[in-house]
Amino acid sequence: MNRDYQTIALEQDGWSVRVLDQTLLPHLFEYRILRDCDDAVTAIRDMWVRGAPLIGATAAYGVALAMRADPSDSFFETAYEKLFSARPTAVNLRWALDQMRSCLMDKPPSGREALAYARAAEIASEDDTLCSAIGRHGAELIAAAYRRNPERPVNILTHCNAGALATCGMGTATAPVYTAHGDGIPVHVWVDETRPRNQGAALTAWELGRAGVPHTLIADNTGGHLMQHGEVDLCIVGSDRTTAAGDVCNKIGTYLKALAAHDNGVPFYAALPSTTIDWTIDDGVADIPIEKRHGDELAVVSGLTDTGQVASIRLPPVDTPVGNYAFDVTPARLVTGIITERGVTKATKPALQEVFADLSKQD
Amino acid sequence: MNRDYQTIALEQDGWSVRVLDQTLLPHLFEYRILRDCDDAVTAIRDMWVRGAPLIGATAAYGVALAMRADPSDSFFETAYEKLFSARPTAVNLRWALDQMRSCLMDKPPSGREALAYARAAEIASEDDTLCSAIGRHGAELIAAAYRRNPERPVNILTHCNAGALATCGMGTATAPVYTAHGDGIPVHVWVDETRPRNQGAALTAWELGRAGVPHTLIADNTGGHLMQHGEVDLCIVGSDRTTAAGDVCNKIGTYLKALAAHDNGVPFYAALPSTTIDWTIDDGVADIPIEKRHGDELAVVSGLTDTGQVASIRLPPVDTPVGNYAFDVTPARLVTGIITERGVTKATKPALQEVFADLSKQD
Repeated sequence: MNRDYQTIALEQDGWSVRVLDQTLLPHLFEYRILRDCDDAVTAIRDMWVRGAPLIGATAAYGVALAMRADPSDSFFETAYEKLFSARPTAVNLRWALDQMRSCLMDKPPSGREALAYARAAEIASEDDTLCSAIGRHGAELIAAAYRRNPERPVNILTHCNAGALATCGMGTATAPVYTAHGDGIPVHVWVDETRPRNQGAALTAWELGRAGVPHTLIADNTGGHLMQHGEVDLCIVGSDRTTAAGDVCNKIGTYLKALAAHDNGVPFYAALPSTTIDWTIDDGVADIPIEKRHGDELAVVSGLTDTGQVASIRLPPVDTPVGNYAFDVTPARLVTGIITERGVTKATKPALQEVFADLSKQD
Repeated sequence: MNRDYQTIALEQDGWSVRVLDQTLLPHLFEYRILRDCDDAVTAIRDMWVRGAPLIGATAAYGVALAMRADPSDSFFETAYEKLFSARPTAVNLRWALDQMRSCLMDKPPSGREALAYARAAEIASEDDTLCSAIGRHGAELIAAAYRRNPERPVNILTHCNAGALATCGMGTATAPVYTAHGDGIPVHVWVDETRPRNQGAALTAWELGRAGVPHTLIADNTGGHLMQHGEVDLCIVGSDRTTAAGDVCNKIGTYLKALAAHDNGVPFYAALPSTTIDWTIDDGVADIPIEKRHGDELAVVSGLTDTGQVASIRLPPVDTPVGNYAFDVTPARLVTGIITERGVTKATKPALQEVFADLSKQD
């Protein structure tokens, strides 16, 4: 992947942490420097960083910054609580903080700062490795599609941003695309705008453009028409939570694209690290609660004015009631396969259990 | 239907024509006065008026304004050409202009002004009657849904604006809703935002609010999730063109909602006057060309700033390629029924031919 930015990195001073402020994308590109734990809390809470893996890495560095200021047990606990409450629903946030706890708490305070920075760097690096493995496995699907029809680029449809910007690597859903592109396979990505928060328009279009990957932004309404007319070779989306039976919870609208893919014989894949699989539930439609968020996320959009300012405007009448559902669940029967760090598996309980025998038996 | 505005009407002076400028909705409510044929051309071309029936009525009044200025044959022909070229793809535009021609051209010039105004008023009135008939037939479906589950309002999902604002009456897709609401049946409408042009947020939400019909604006991505959870009792959409076999061409994204309805056992109806049926083709996916429009319709949105101004902003990066497809085709197999002025029919060729024996044999 050809990338000239980093979502998170240690500064040259060796201790402060630089993050890309994603709230300003795509119109402004600014790094922000985190100098203490409170800065890390702000970065997570105000969504300068987003995407579960990146939130986890930011929290880990937040603990490192805390240990630099004061390596005591009590300061660690305060930092843990502050960071955890910054976005309580992100599963990776708790995971990363628990990793830091088990790395640090049985060590003497004097050594904790160095250990914390090392473990935070490792968490970021592990995420990069996971992304690369997903990319390598998924790229084989793209290469196979190209061999079937070498007359044109492989057209891949994606929804939301499960991209480099959500991780410390090349993303999850985008990783196969970047890998195939790097291998010299001609690709073209249909980028769903992803209302209400426009992650496709603001983030995925931005990062694909920055990486030189051919792409076209489309309204979320468009995928079905394109699939009816043979303009999509495969769909690859990310996942916020996938059940043990292969139901895929992802950004609202994913289910509609999966239905269109199924109706038109287009393969539909979810790309995700195994940490996304919730081994405790099978039926995603019944058992995954779907977050309802504030209507202004839909009603108010921000973008660039013709004088180059970033501004927000309201689309519907001021008194229009708005329903804002964040995610939906795509039943496993519509999912062709799941691309994980261990390969591409069927979206069924036996197939997932076989590949992840070590993980699925934990519960 | 409880309405305190008119899309088009004769002014009190008895000759000038007042239209609601829909480009300013939902944030500004302004009528504009058409005083000559060129004003009518501007109203159509600049989309102060939109929706096939309303465009037709505006063109008819444009001819009346022309005949008032100069009732000669040559002036008629000039007016016809100017009005026709204002939006050449609208089928109702040609139909209305041809109606005016056959009404006027064999009459002496001295009588043409009065005849033209009378025929224009008649075209508007006929559209109102069509809408009411569609409303009456469709309301029976809503009433039946209410009888099946009288514990809550009937939840109807619609896409785009096939509403009062698109017609000289109570709309097509909205007509059953207004009629049922007027009959005292509790209804609630899920209003798809309808990217890229936001007709749901800007027009349907506005007109339902103005008429006092309970509704909730949602992202286009949301309908599938709502249907999975039993929150939609039926879908009613409009149509820009329906084939003899019942394939429904409508605003992009309609197909995705029809797939979700089918997957969840939710009835899916298209409401349309019989003039929308194209008896010359069967296979809509193969034979209806889908208009590609300028990407800025998707990339640039307009709305209300927090200081109360109407402003436009750009969502994606400035150099992002954008694909903008205006319509899609829902195959008849996904359409539960077609609501026309003559009743609700199956979306099959034999059913449509039986109900419209007089029309379907014209070709």
